[in-house]
Amino acid sequence: MNITRAALILLSLLFLLGFFQESVDGRPLLQSLSRPKPDDAALFARWLVSQSSWGVLNTIASDMGGAPFGNVVSFSDGSPDKGRGIPYFYLTTLDPTARNALKDQRSSFTISEYAIGTCGKTDPENPSCAKITLVGKLKVVNGDPKETSFAQTALFTKHPEMEGWPKGHNFQIFKLEIEEIFMINWFGGPKSLTVDQYLKVKMDSYTAIA
Amino acid sequence: MNITRAALILLSLLFLLGFFQESVDGRPLLQSLSRPKPDDAALFARWLVSQSSWGVLNTIASDMGGAPFGNVVSFSDGSPDKGRGIPYFYLTTLDPTARNALKDQRSSFTISEYAIGTCGKTDPENPSCAKITLVGKLKVVNGDPKETSFAQTALFTKHPEMEGWPKGHNFQIFKLEIEEIFMINWFGGPKSLTVDQYLKVKMDSYTAIA
Repeated sequence: MNITRAALILLSLLFLLGFFQESVDGRPLLQSLSRPKPDDAALFARWLVSQSSWGVLNTIASDMGGAPFGNVVSFSDGSPDKGRGIPYFYLTTLDPTARNALKDQRSSFTISEYAIGTCGKTDPENPSCAKITLVGKLKVVNGDPKETSFAQTALFTKHPEMEGWPKGHNFQIFKLEIEEIFMINWFGGPKSLTVDQYLKVKMDSYTAIA
Repeated sequence: MNITRAALILLSLLFLLGFFQESVDGRPLLQSLSRPKPDDAALFARWLVSQSSWGVLNTIASDMGGAPFGNVVSFSDGSPDKGRGIPYFYLTTLDPTARNALKDQRSSFTISEYAIGTCGKTDPENPSCAKITLVGKLKVVNGDPKETSFAQTALFTKHPEMEGWPKGHNFQIFKLEIEEIFMINWFGGPKSLTVDQYLKVKMDSYTAIA
């Protein structure tokens, strides 16, 4: 009977470990909110942004013949239940993306649902595995101290190691001022979704926990 | 004793399930090759491309004021041990990326090592979690039947559901003709790596299985 109990305890631990690992691999260690219905485009878009921790930030590379230059970056729009939908980044001009943006602010930021692990076995290009591209202008955040403080907390909460990144690299907070939204989260082409509809969603009133 | 045995069998099944899940979530169900040393830039770049199944493909959106437009796509450069380093895509002009490329071929394709699950707890923007951006021209593949055949097999092997995608959507094979490579896989800035060095790596002679 002791062996049975030991096996059952071990079994329970393995289950717990399974849940824990899911929140470590590929997802930030923050509250997971359940996936909204694809029809609710605004809520779905905000959910996808709030649950993601990284994406590809695109700028125009004038030193590469004006090519669109994508770069892997971490970001945050706030903690998942308090996100505002605006992606903030922590960039250094040692990296081409920040240098490009200071010359030409045209930009887009692309996220795949595949990266957060909720697409199952569906192919990343299948329309039912959601993807979003926020198109706009990439700007340094340095005007409003309240926004700077919100952005810094948003970034350092989701990406704890950022706080320790080398001071000499002069990391600065940037944000994407969104002008257009391209999102596919089901069959039938991109969802119709305005920036206003997207920004006015209140994530703190969406309490469905995954 | 029967309960003990049942518990132990269940326990073994859970272990097996754990291993199986790791190869389903986020990685293609193909041979995994072990991570090369970051110093071997050409081999590392080819490994990262061969192990990945999706990325963000960037084009110039003339209908969005010339903004750089990133889009999540699946791709393949061949099966991991026979890849050639050239990313092939399966795109339809129902999607803006293919339409953009037919007007302006300038493009880049961006992949994060974070997506293949080998970065552990390292932040996706940390230089030790590798990222690569291949910059070049995005072109339809329709000249050489041998290349078309290689590309189609490469795509359908890595992305089995592609073969069943709607015929009416007129999917076409595209490729990125690489002109420049930007890769960070350790501290100290992007690796020096020419397109020739990248393309001449023979993956079938790299047999280190993960």
